[in-house]
Amino acid sequence: MSYKVGYLGPAATFTHLAVTKFFEDHAEHVPFLTIPQCMDAAADGKIDLAVVPLENALEGSVNLTIDYLVHEQPLSIIGEIVAPIQQHLMVHPSREDSWEDAERVYSHSHAIAQCHKFLHHQLPKAKYEYATSTGAAAKYIQEHPEENIAVVANELAAEEYNLKIVRKNIHDYTHNHTRFAVLHPNQHTYIKTKLNKITDRTTLMITLPSDQSGALHQVLSAFSWRKLNLSKIESRPMKTGLGNYFFIIDIDMKMDDVLIPGAMAELEALGCSVRTLGTYSAYSI
Amino acid sequence: MSYKVGYLGPAATFTHLAVTKFFEDHAEHVPFLTIPQCMDAAADGKIDLAVVPLENALEGSVNLTIDYLVHEQPLSIIGEIVAPIQQHLMVHPSREDSWEDAERVYSHSHAIAQCHKFLHHQLPKAKYEYATSTGAAAKYIQEHPEENIAVVANELAAEEYNLKIVRKNIHDYTHNHTRFAVLHPNQHTYIKTKLNKITDRTTLMITLPSDQSGALHQVLSAFSWRKLNLSKIESRPMKTGLGNYFFIIDIDMKMDDVLIPGAMAELEALGCSVRTLGTYSAYSI
Repeated sequence: MSYKVGYLGPAATFTHLAVTKFFEDHAEHVPFLTIPQCMDAAADGKIDLAVVPLENALEGSVNLTIDYLVHEQPLSIIGEIVAPIQQHLMVHPSREDSWEDAERVYSHSHAIAQCHKFLHHQLPKAKYEYATSTGAAAKYIQEHPEENIAVVANELAAEEYNLKIVRKNIHDYTHNHTRFAVLHPNQHTYIKTKLNKITDRTTLMITLPSDQSGALHQVLSAFSWRKLNLSKIESRPMKTGLGNYFFIIDIDMKMDDVLIPGAMAELEALGCSVRTLGTYSAYSI
Repeated sequence: MSYKVGYLGPAATFTHLAVTKFFEDHAEHVPFLTIPQCMDAAADGKIDLAVVPLENALEGSVNLTIDYLVHEQPLSIIGEIVAPIQQHLMVHPSREDSWEDAERVYSHSHAIAQCHKFLHHQLPKAKYEYATSTGAAAKYIQEHPEENIAVVANELAAEEYNLKIVRKNIHDYTHNHTRFAVLHPNQHTYIKTKLNKITDRTTLMITLPSDQSGALHQVLSAFSWRKLNLSKIESRPMKTGLGNYFFIIDIDMKMDDVLIPGAMAELEALGCSVRTLGTYSAYSI
């Protein structure tokens, strides 16, 4: 059987790179221009699975993915791909010798932020412009050789769009990784990969009842006394006004019959609302 | 005495709007193209104060401000301005009757995200392009009337750049506000405004020692048993690898002699590192 896997495109984004490694040959890859479009297609059954970025080690959660999952399109996370992020500076081949004169740097805002020091020193006069993805930025300069632009993107993008890499590994911090989520409407869906499993995880969304400080302390108690290890806790605004947050929590184990359901039942009894965003395995490239 | 106040420009950004209301006439306003450039100028004494966006009620913290404050330029928050955010769709006057044919929508990524539903329904075929600020996007179409673009920005931008508002209040959620931070190298700096004070605040940055789940629970205990009310807790990646976070905490009072220093001393004894990012009053427009 061949899967139809949607991803944040165009071709040669970091998401595409993750999809290529995770699914190998037994999948058809379908690019989407935005994260919501990709997630909508999975919900509507136009594709079998959606792969979108979830969190970057430097920039934090990809807010659009989290917010769309929470507020608009309740898909389940059924798998995670952790991929190293290596950024390169590239230009149209006709500008290989004059790249230092680039007037603009074009890329995804996260990619530009990840290379801030390099760009600040090597291209101090260039203006930054933001694309929907690194792949989209690379595609743009292939199609607009007359514009004096440099792009920050990955190696696959240089190949795909026939660009010249003029500086390799320009990211400020090493050990940069991104987590990609594999999404499906049904939580009980099994996917196969040859990648190495690094851990099991359960991701919960928790909304607190009222008084922030005491309530969050209680929430953490429910996990702490059960020795459930949280590898992530992140807050996001509820979109109902300044100061109202929900929390995304990652527990380093799959949903069991006793501990996690016990903690969830306690939290609900305390007036919290709790939703399981997914219970899945994480694999590393 | 007249202050020299730097802000995230160009003219007519939401930050500029906040500066105008906060300082009234007794200040000279200096626009900067990026948040780091504005903060660097305040640290170097080229301006007296820097005003930059800190947190939006819908999109969450402005990561660039938080990260630059924490990792690069340790200024103090000495004041906060809370401003309502109202977004309008505007075009070059020559396109007033054909705005529905716009091929691209240009604005800050937060502004586009805030109007996602409106744009999705009213301009379904338009591509999104991201500018460094709403003001910069408005300035761009004033200078490029030949391009078929619509811009999302505020009323001040329509005036400043002589654009035509074709749809008012296109933001998806009402009650949208942004918090702006007034920054200065010295924490003990007094600023005057005629705006109404809404609360006092102390903002701390806390780094946990090791095991996430138990440690954060302990940290919150130190505030909880002192009945110190936290109006915000947000995690950001440490930039040292996936799963390493620091926390930004807002306490709803100014630094005192007993309670907050007591909590901070306990946290340090537990192996946390704690830094005061500011203790200040928040004012509402």
